[in-house]
Amino acid sequence: MVYQGITFRGSSSGAIFKSTFSRDSLATDDVVIKITHSGLCGTDLHHIHEDRVLGHEGIGIVQDLGPMCRQLSIGDRVGWGFTYAGCGFCSACLSGDEALCVKCANYGTGEFDQGSLGSLAIKKERWLFRIPDGITSELACPLMCAGVSVFTPLIEYVKPSDRVGIVGIGGLGHLAIQFASKMGCDVVAFSGSPSKREETLALGAREFYAVKDVEDYTTLGLKKPLDALMICTPERLDLGQYYPLLEQRAHVISVTIGEGNITAPLSPTAARNIKIIGWVPVSRKEYVKCLDFCERNKIFPIIERFPMSEKGIMEAIGKLSAGKIRYRAVFSWI
Amino acid sequence: MVYQGITFRGSSSGAIFKSTFSRDSLATDDVVIKITHSGLCGTDLHHIHEDRVLGHEGIGIVQDLGPMCRQLSIGDRVGWGFTYAGCGFCSACLSGDEALCVKCANYGTGEFDQGSLGSLAIKKERWLFRIPDGITSELACPLMCAGVSVFTPLIEYVKPSDRVGIVGIGGLGHLAIQFASKMGCDVVAFSGSPSKREETLALGAREFYAVKDVEDYTTLGLKKPLDALMICTPERLDLGQYYPLLEQRAHVISVTIGEGNITAPLSPTAARNIKIIGWVPVSRKEYVKCLDFCERNKIFPIIERFPMSEKGIMEAIGKLSAGKIRYRAVFSWI
Repeated sequence: MVYQGITFRGSSSGAIFKSTFSRDSLATDDVVIKITHSGLCGTDLHHIHEDRVLGHEGIGIVQDLGPMCRQLSIGDRVGWGFTYAGCGFCSACLSGDEALCVKCANYGTGEFDQGSLGSLAIKKERWLFRIPDGITSELACPLMCAGVSVFTPLIEYVKPSDRVGIVGIGGLGHLAIQFASKMGCDVVAFSGSPSKREETLALGAREFYAVKDVEDYTTLGLKKPLDALMICTPERLDLGQYYPLLEQRAHVISVTIGEGNITAPLSPTAARNIKIIGWVPVSRKEYVKCLDFCERNKIFPIIERFPMSEKGIMEAIGKLSAGKIRYRAVFSWI
Repeated sequence: MVYQGITFRGSSSGAIFKSTFSRDSLATDDVVIKITHSGLCGTDLHHIHEDRVLGHEGIGIVQDLGPMCRQLSIGDRVGWGFTYAGCGFCSACLSGDEALCVKCANYGTGEFDQGSLGSLAIKKERWLFRIPDGITSELACPLMCAGVSVFTPLIEYVKPSDRVGIVGIGGLGHLAIQFASKMGCDVVAFSGSPSKREETLALGAREFYAVKDVEDYTTLGLKKPLDALMICTPERLDLGQYYPLLEQRAHVISVTIGEGNITAPLSPTAARNIKIIGWVPVSRKEYVKCLDFCERNKIFPIIERFPMSEKGIMEAIGKLSAGKIRYRAVFSWI
């Protein structure tokens, strides 16, 4: 049998072109998925100038299975994200931290011939996650990368009794606010734009501060210091600016990727036992927990809908590049 | 009764002068200590141009006690370090983390009229620590600041199964190697000077790398990556240089104070879940544990001896400023 589908590729000009994905056999642990929806992530923007298929927030329906698949059935609704394989034998893999495997395969390192921007994908069963009934397919997409990326360090480093600051209210930040709020935290939002105040408070933040052009953050007038700060934008990584807002022993968590450096003032970092933690890799156990947590606590992204077409994708990329998506773009075939 | 002693002060010129400390009464929880020995810390160098008494690694014998003292007796051998009071009521103090109290009093903030460079000090009973019999007074001095400063984060963040790098083999680093080695860790030392190789290996490191003028640390040829890295020098805080040497999820611990910044590359910090941790504050519970650990495991500093006099102090300050002390200066009256 031949498995064939449409895909959407980047190109050197940055224009998106339709192409074809085809395979004439399945490995024993392969799953064929008819894609219904895909999200668009900031990371995709780093790849639009490459001749490769884009997208790593995929949702679809299982159409066929290799003979060794044990968990999924035809007709199941599944999703996948950034990472799609670990070596299976290193200390990270043996600990269930496959996304930290130094040989792990992910959107940045392989599978250039397929992605979630398309009509068909063939993935390994163990890297697919059943979508709970309480989450629609279009709302599930952004959870597969943005959602799990902020959920995982919040669960690891933040306590429900903490007061948590979320910096940058975009695709990641608007989900981080919901997660922290549903964990019971006291959530404080920092945004460049004052225009996001009402929506941010509705998502669960109890305080909102517009920080564009603010140099001295002590002038913001925070009611109490923060036990944790999650930075969801690659723009404000000179951490000293936040230090007057932090509790002793605060966790500062950076969940973004980019070219720059994180910078922090030496003496107060040491004197106050500040912990600066980078986190992006999300392993299988965390996808399962995140989807369950979202269904139970009704955590859903706010999305903008686009058609799964060259034109629809170009339009969404343009808006995302301009910082105008509120808060995550999702494509659908139907 | 009048309590009177000699002290040694800094001055605007950086010269050290003898002066007098005197008090005519004791608070109910005060302890009068006849100082026998004092260490000299890098932090003292930041204060030699101030008109204040220097020194915060003190060891001496209890001479008198206020009426509410409950633990110490006249004749006890005690030591003290950097911090000498917390507010007693904040969350940090209630957790036994008094050194993180934002109102905590320490060598940088008060008690300018007394210090460990002198013949007499009057301190609060609860901030004095009995020196175990197995540690001599002169060897106890460097444990009261350098020792506890590296012991505390090693105990908190490093496991005995870890491979640990120690950067900077001076007052802090030569103790950190011993602590990590006696914890059972696989210890790797990084030093500017190749001349410290033999001593470093004798202290418990299993590998030694001289890194002066080395730009690309992958050329060092480490046998395996490091689970943790403790930076004991304020000179090499551009952490990206170390990243090729680190395991996924490594802890990078900075235990120094200075004017500069810590800098780390954003993407690998996030992709590899690197944790950057600043640590200096040491609370009472940690002094007790550290002194016990040192006695049990025979962890002692290597010291250079100087007389407790204007001349002796000036000489030691000169050597410390020039990076020539191996590895900690200790003054004594006797």
